Amino acid sequence: MGMSILITGGARSGKSRLAEGWATRDGAAIYIATCRARNSEMTDRIAEHRARRGPEWKTLEEPLDLVGALDGTDGQGARLVDCLTLWLANLMEDERDWQGSVEDLVRTLRRQTSPVILVTGEVGSGIVPASPLARDYRDALGLVNQSIADAADEVYLAVAGYPLKVKPNAFG
Amino acid sequence: MGMSILITGGARSGKSRLAEGWATRDGAAIYIATCRARNSEMTDRIAEHRARRGPEWKTLEEPLDLVGALDGTDGQGARLVDCLTLWLANLMEDERDWQGSVEDLVRTLRRQTSPVILVTGEVGSGIVPASPLARDYRDALGLVNQSIADAADEVYLAVAGYPLKVKPNAFG
Amino acid sequence: MGMSILITGGARSGKSRLAEGWATRDGAAIYIATCRARNSEMTDRIAEHRARRGPEWKTLEEPLDLVGALDGTDGQGARLVDCLTLWLANLMEDERDWQGSVEDLVRTLRRQTSPVILVTGEVGSGIVPASPLARDYRDALGLVNQSIADAADEVYLAVAGYPLKVKPNAFG
Repeated sequence: MGMSILITGGARSGKSRLAEGWATRDGAAIYIATCRARNSEMTDRIAEHRARRGPEWKTLEEPLDLVGALDGTDGQGARLVDCLTLWLANLMEDERDWQGSVEDLVRTLRRQTSPVILVTGEVGSGIVPASPLARDYRDALGLVNQSIADAADEVYLAVAGYPLKVKPNAFG
Repeated sequence: MGMSILITGGARSGKSRLAEGWATRDGAAIYIATCRARNSEMTDRIAEHRARRGPEWKTLEEPLDLVGALDGTDGQGARLVDCLTLWLANLMEDERDWQGSVEDLVRTLRRQTSPVILVTGEVGSGIVPASPLARDYRDALGLVNQSIADAADEVYLAVAGYPLKVKPNAFG
Repeated sequence: MGMSILITGGARSGKSRLAEGWATRDGAAIYIATCRARNSEMTDRIAEHRARRGPEWKTLEEPLDLVGALDGTDGQGARLVDCLTLWLANLMEDERDWQGSVEDLVRTLRRQTSPVILVTGEVGSGIVPASPLARDYRDALGLVNQSIADAADEVYLAVAGYPLKVKPNAFG
């Protein structure tokens, strides 16, 4: 069975950097990027992430079909999915069935034979957003994170670049 | 002495579900709901929470008087207060003395003989809100959480459905 | 070598109070305040913080030059820097080179012989802010926190008045 790890955290909490370190611990790794380069801020961030990753990485861009991306790369080393926040935003933007997609992803994770590290975000610890769309997204991401955490072997919360272990722990 | 537990976390972090599991560990439990069904979004969420809870639950709706609700049910099993975020919002909306109410609640918690589990929220880890009302609420909730945490035997932070133990720990 | 501790947390998570307790553990301490009293809300908060601190404190107001404040007080006991969130806001407001200032601060921290406790904030766990300025600040603070956490001997996350140990831990 391939180990799966979920790492969550706020913006700029160092979660991607931690995930990259873990993914390449045993050599080459595959980066599965979920973002759509929609604007220059995002293009810049993608370029920055790409520059930080070294030649040991193979990159795959997949904004929606994580099931296909994972099944298609199983057995080829660790996969890093960065990140579920954008994947969910893409699903909602395209009016896909995100709940069904999360269930499919959970089933897919459970049958992988190589490791998978998934990066997600925390967006629910501010004041309740005024916009209904933002509230829907916030609620949906919380549910996605719970479902993936339930399927994952380990869960971490990144704080200022350091990981707090959330699962497994003695109090679950 | 009745054990008291505070569980906090962001929106959709799984804190209510964790609290429900703990409250019914030893059998029947009393659910003390603080929300006012003000709009359809809230009515939906209440119905969803109610459907998830099984027949082992007795439900009590009490938007303001938690002291009365706790004293009136002491000795009847574990009580789950869900949640302090709405209780505080109700107090502020009705222009009650929320500081005094928190002090009363702390005293009440200390004299309970059956367990109490309280759910609250984290709203202070986003960007400073533009609205003074939102800033006031955010500050007030932070102070409520500190006061109740101080009185509680155990405090947990829910992350993606899993609890991180905050109190007691070795660094307090 | 002077021990350095970074404590982060949301608004009203009790981080300043925790930091004050640690700073005065071994007697007198120096409070390095970074805030500019810009409006009455801030003046109130400064007065409240000042009232809470006792006569064992010497206070220094330094909105920008933390390097000078730390070097100028080294050997005189523990220093509490409260807080990096306002220091960064001041640097950005004055259009200073905040990245360079953070590098200077890291170097300064590494050469201190008396303890330094630094308070910062978590602002990246809410919904993505609509304003580009707020997004820039949020990203910058996350990077500041990562850099200072990397230089610090210990890092804590304050939740409801209690500290969760983030560094050192077994999973870094």
